[in-house]
Amino acid sequence: MLVVRSDDHRAHHSLELDGGRLIPSWEGPDRAERVESALAERGYRRTRHALPVSAEVLASVHSPAYLEFLVTCWTRWAETHDGPAAMGFAWPARGFRSRRPEDLEGQLGFHSFAADCSITEHTWLAARASASVAATAARAVVDGEASAFALCRPPGHHATADQFGGYCYLNNAAVAVEVLRRGGADRVGVLDIDYHHGNGTQAIFYHRADVPVISIHADPVQAFPWFSGHDDELGAGAGEGWNRNFPLPDGTGADRWLDVLELALVALEGAELDALVVSTGVDTYEGDPISHFRLQSDDFFRVGAAIATAQLPTVFVLEGGYATEQLGTNVVNILDGFGDPQS
Amino acid sequence: MLVVRSDDHRAHHSLELDGGRLIPSWEGPDRAERVESALAERGYRRTRHALPVSAEVLASVHSPAYLEFLVTCWTRWAETHDGPAAMGFAWPARGFRSRRPEDLEGQLGFHSFAADCSITEHTWLAARASASVAATAARAVVDGEASAFALCRPPGHHATADQFGGYCYLNNAAVAVEVLRRGGADRVGVLDIDYHHGNGTQAIFYHRADVPVISIHADPVQAFPWFSGHDDELGAGAGEGWNRNFPLPDGTGADRWLDVLELALVALEGAELDALVVSTGVDTYEGDPISHFRLQSDDFFRVGAAIATAQLPTVFVLEGGYATEQLGTNVVNILDGFGDPQS
Repeated sequence: MLVVRSDDHRAHHSLELDGGRLIPSWEGPDRAERVESALAERGYRRTRHALPVSAEVLASVHSPAYLEFLVTCWTRWAETHDGPAAMGFAWPARGFRSRRPEDLEGQLGFHSFAADCSITEHTWLAARASASVAATAARAVVDGEASAFALCRPPGHHATADQFGGYCYLNNAAVAVEVLRRGGADRVGVLDIDYHHGNGTQAIFYHRADVPVISIHADPVQAFPWFSGHDDELGAGAGEGWNRNFPLPDGTGADRWLDVLELALVALEGAELDALVVSTGVDTYEGDPISHFRLQSDDFFRVGAAIATAQLPTVFVLEGGYATEQLGTNVVNILDGFGDPQS
Repeated sequence: MLVVRSDDHRAHHSLELDGGRLIPSWEGPDRAERVESALAERGYRRTRHALPVSAEVLASVHSPAYLEFLVTCWTRWAETHDGPAAMGFAWPARGFRSRRPEDLEGQLGFHSFAADCSITEHTWLAARASASVAATAARAVVDGEASAFALCRPPGHHATADQFGGYCYLNNAAVAVEVLRRGGADRVGVLDIDYHHGNGTQAIFYHRADVPVISIHADPVQAFPWFSGHDDELGAGAGEGWNRNFPLPDGTGADRWLDVLELALVALEGAELDALVVSTGVDTYEGDPISHFRLQSDDFFRVGAAIATAQLPTVFVLEGGYATEQLGTNVVNILDGFGDPQS
């Protein structure tokens, strides 16, 4: 399997509000390093550096105002603040309006939904590089690779067309979808197996029939992002029926989780896809410090093997997973379960 | 003028996310102490301790689920967290759903709209005491006082029926309105002169014709709470036409501000009120550390004098003002401008 990577994530550090404290983000550069190490140890020798994602592809996923905000945010912040990270502190919550403010702190609230991540000097560089990793992996599949692994950091599935949150700034999975679509795949499915609901990916494709989105995740009555991911979110308009959520309770173990994966794969089979993007979070792991499912490392082989039964050109896009020491093992177990590292 | 107060605010301390840092709140116990000192120095000798606000009045302003959340939040937090303050980190922002989660961190997001305040051990005690101060002041006016000053802390005008934020937990102005209404005032107006839009008060009365709400504040395109307070928010349903906002640009000075106050008072006159509640913020002061109008201390005499021209039974409810050293002077200047301290 081809691995696509970039070094440009390394300078992205973020602060997050967690348990009433502002701490260095659980989502740090060591995550990608662990995955790189595990890939090397396990014989994934076919690697490629990311080529820059095109502005056209980015603009097909994200709004112009949001992209401008991301590009300029740190400079605007540094001109008027000495705080270590650009963070908003008020959001257009229930009952509030959605008009975009002019000032930066208002826009930080407008363009986000969470205080679990922030924008710092190199966030845009890293986010763009991560999207580039996804785009390059998708392009490789367009060009004939059976599958590719996009070693994305920061992750992307929580980012909507114009909101960051959940450690995500650009939606890498959606970028991969768009590259596959432009490369000739008429119907591209997204299978999101991260512990947390991929609210951003759902929102981006919610009205589209050409991109079925299926997610297996912690029930939002109990888990982030809380306000998205219920099983009655089925798509709308042309997309009606093409969004499926499988929320599961805290404590879910591998057997039940894999049963639900089978249901998800049956649903994807019915969608008659040309290609598949897998939002690959491994925070379903029992040792994850901020999640509450109970998959063990060996279970991830079964996850990969099950996805392989779809027999589709597949782009794996790295999402979450915060048990850093086991992160590489868990991710590579999925890839190993899917197929031969050398292929 | 009668002054109503309580000591129970003192134990309420909060953390706020400000400029990418988590800091002790700008809204601290010293604010109320400064106002108490200024009142004593300036001859306000008629003071009264607050009597507890009734559950019935609280329930007429806030939802049962929200009140239960506020009462139990700290105990629930302390059972599962060791962080110094209960804070959420994700909100039902644009495009998200409004279903109430079951777990505490989800509910912290559901029941708030900002990360500029938090819930700590004594927050409920202080918030209830602050609402009790407002209720007692309103009751005194029902019982024949021409006016009363409710020395409320924490403030209230940002709190909606079921959301905290902007240092506010219970809506003290709305509590005063309800006590006046139950005491026989058929039409009670709210005049909000805080620098920030009183989004909570607006939301609580937005569909009601019996409580006209008028607010003069910083334009939300530039200032907190950003997603509420535009001049096209005019009320809805039975309340249509009974909400008026006068947003003003940063840098607004006293002359322009007082011109707009005249407009507001004309509008209130047309409403044929039986009583008035003034959400009394003095963060319009030029020295306020988090606000950007340019009223000087002496201008607040003119503010009080202008409000007196309405010739209505009036409850002043303390809201914001964060230039702590001048806070007492500025507040008491409004009261002095309004009438005789000894009356």
